[in-house]
Amino acid sequence: MRVSKLFTKTLRDAPADEVAKNAQLLIRAGYVYKEMAGAYAYLPLGIRVVEKIKQIVREEMDRVDSNELIMTSLQRKEIWDKTGRWSDDTVDIWFKTRLNDDTEVALAWSHEEPIVEMMKQYVHSYKDLPSSVYQFQTKMRNEKRAKSGIMRGREFIMKDMYSFHATAEDLAAYYDNVIEAYKRVYDRLGIGDETYVTFASGGAFTKFSHEFQTICDAGEDIIYLHREKNIAVNEEVIDEAVKELGINRDEFEKVKTAETGNIFNFGTQKTDEMGLYYTAEDGSQQSLYIGSYGIGITRAMGVIAEKMSDEKGLVWPKNIAPYLVYLVSIGKKGAAEAEKVYAQLTEAGVEVLFDDRDERPGTKFADAELMGIPLRLTVSDRGIEAGEYELTDRATGETQAVPVSEVVQRISA
Amino acid sequence: MRVSKLFTKTLRDAPADEVAKNAQLLIRAGYVYKEMAGAYAYLPLGIRVVEKIKQIVREEMDRVDSNELIMTSLQRKEIWDKTGRWSDDTVDIWFKTRLNDDTEVALAWSHEEPIVEMMKQYVHSYKDLPSSVYQFQTKMRNEKRAKSGIMRGREFIMKDMYSFHATAEDLAAYYDNVIEAYKRVYDRLGIGDETYVTFASGGAFTKFSHEFQTICDAGEDIIYLHREKNIAVNEEVIDEAVKELGINRDEFEKVKTAETGNIFNFGTQKTDEMGLYYTAEDGSQQSLYIGSYGIGITRAMGVIAEKMSDEKGLVWPKNIAPYLVYLVSIGKKGAAEAEKVYAQLTEAGVEVLFDDRDERPGTKFADAELMGIPLRLTVSDRGIEAGEYELTDRATGETQAVPVSEVVQRISA
Repeated sequence: MRVSKLFTKTLRDAPADEVAKNAQLLIRAGYVYKEMAGAYAYLPLGIRVVEKIKQIVREEMDRVDSNELIMTSLQRKEIWDKTGRWSDDTVDIWFKTRLNDDTEVALAWSHEEPIVEMMKQYVHSYKDLPSSVYQFQTKMRNEKRAKSGIMRGREFIMKDMYSFHATAEDLAAYYDNVIEAYKRVYDRLGIGDETYVTFASGGAFTKFSHEFQTICDAGEDIIYLHREKNIAVNEEVIDEAVKELGINRDEFEKVKTAETGNIFNFGTQKTDEMGLYYTAEDGSQQSLYIGSYGIGITRAMGVIAEKMSDEKGLVWPKNIAPYLVYLVSIGKKGAAEAEKVYAQLTEAGVEVLFDDRDERPGTKFADAELMGIPLRLTVSDRGIEAGEYELTDRATGETQAVPVSEVVQRISA
Repeated sequence: MRVSKLFTKTLRDAPADEVAKNAQLLIRAGYVYKEMAGAYAYLPLGIRVVEKIKQIVREEMDRVDSNELIMTSLQRKEIWDKTGRWSDDTVDIWFKTRLNDDTEVALAWSHEEPIVEMMKQYVHSYKDLPSSVYQFQTKMRNEKRAKSGIMRGREFIMKDMYSFHATAEDLAAYYDNVIEAYKRVYDRLGIGDETYVTFASGGAFTKFSHEFQTICDAGEDIIYLHREKNIAVNEEVIDEAVKELGINRDEFEKVKTAETGNIFNFGTQKTDEMGLYYTAEDGSQQSLYIGSYGIGITRAMGVIAEKMSDEKGLVWPKNIAPYLVYLVSIGKKGAAEAEKVYAQLTEAGVEVLFDDRDERPGTKFADAELMGIPLRLTVSDRGIEAGEYELTDRATGETQAVPVSEVVQRISA
């Protein structure tokens, strides 16, 4: 992609009302646009990061044999009435609206009930189990506070997965598989080392649910962390957990975190509330066991923007950067040579953002840093004479002179 | 993909309240699930078709240098007030709702105004023009009638594109490029021969706008078609068009169609209403020229389902089929051999749906036909003895015996 063909520009300032660091950086660098508090558009650079995060999550969900689908945002009252969750007194983040014939409908803040309802069409017998489905959905939540940029949205992208099982044991085994799949996701997103499986307040069926909490100063959660034993506990259940685990509370370190994922064991509660059953091998009617597993896609992007940034701008990990290389030319010979390098790298399958604008090198360098592209390749008249280009690492700031003949190989390796 | 791992099943019947052929077939074959009238979930097979259509459209929009982004569904009143289109009296398909602080907001039925508003941040000078952006968005339209399955939804996926220009001439040239891009899209979707660029009632700036109308018995439009001269006119403007074109009305054939795309020339109307200007080379402030270009992604899928189907089920064109090959085994040797063939085809990059279920061949054949997978490959004990597999074309019904050694090459060619 040529910078001259990008419709966005980097901006000196974020909107005055934007207080979150992640959104300030993402807006200034041209990744997102603020439509209103808690609702952001994703611009060309931003959409590439979102899609890369989604693809990592997709691959890991496919590995646990889950099927991708996409439910509707419009939801029916009668489905949520079955579990008593339609009322605004029970769920205080509903967006509700009406069809033209005055029927009350709502916008999806979750899909637990509608997915359970749908599965009645497809699960009848023990032979149909286990079954697992997931989606990347734009959730709508009428949040009172929406001051954390893309880390807490009124409209945001979430991966939610739901699994259906004949027995508690089968659910437990799958649940553990998903914990491992989630760990692989966070590792691939570059935040694995600072993301903890955390005991949190339970669902209906288990004492604790599990959250994935990522250490983040801008996070809204507090966890108690025992680094040595690799145990993390959400503040809300620390008293119970201390008792249960038999660890002294003083041994835990208190840290600010953002919840980047969560998993619930619903047991048979939803099945029974909503009337989803299966016929067992002996012909008897049985309750299904259900698990639910979420990852906030745009929240994860926001957390990464918060954690991986410095005074110059964003610093994306290579796995999710919109482009791997920011190509800059200096001088006339440099410009012609950069065109060739752009063609070569693109041919080699490298994702390159080519700054072909007629701008000062300093402006180009500053934009490359603000956008947080992992590698900057500088092709200058002086370098051409010396037979070398400059390759700069965004994260470390280190610059290496790379012989012209080795550039493509070095970058695409 | 193994059929045993798909959570969906083919269904004998569609829901009783489903009157549209496209939705009946898509529901029975496991592509979509009806949440409510006009709102359908896309299941694993369905999501693959949607993504393939989107990818074709994406490639063609990228070819006209448009930038992909994704706007929000939540929209602000003050933006639409600028053009007088917030009122339900002016636009009767709004879904409206309220933030927790009682601010009235709405769900996007279109993004013209929000995109123009956003461009104020990025377009200042003639150097920033032309500029073009597009998105694949879930639009929400509070339709009174929603009886055409996925051809007219209350919630549906649309590609909408918006272009911004310094002069009327530049917009006109781009507009013509987009017409050509759209023709390539419909060709690649397999409906190019039956899709007509159609004169329709104009926007603010031109006598006529252009619709892309696809011949379809289930369509809601009527056009007048002059096949010889390749001229099509929407019924709503036939009187004006007859005068303008100087063609006798009797020469036109009246046909039912579905509008699968449309393009508008807004001239400078929206610019002026919304206050988006640019500074020309001479320093003067000028109005921008705007074009708007839509393609209904899920509607196109519905139209294709209507047109390309028979009494046995769907008949997808290869370009957008969820899988190219439906692999069926018969007998014990057949089952073992089919596992090998599945591995070989997958290795060769062929998308295969492998029916590994313990079902009668007739059931598998019927499902393959209902799902409309373009090729069926049958591996039977008898065939193995003869050294041949059977390759059946869904569209023609023709079966060929293919020597074992040639199967992968024949299919992946």
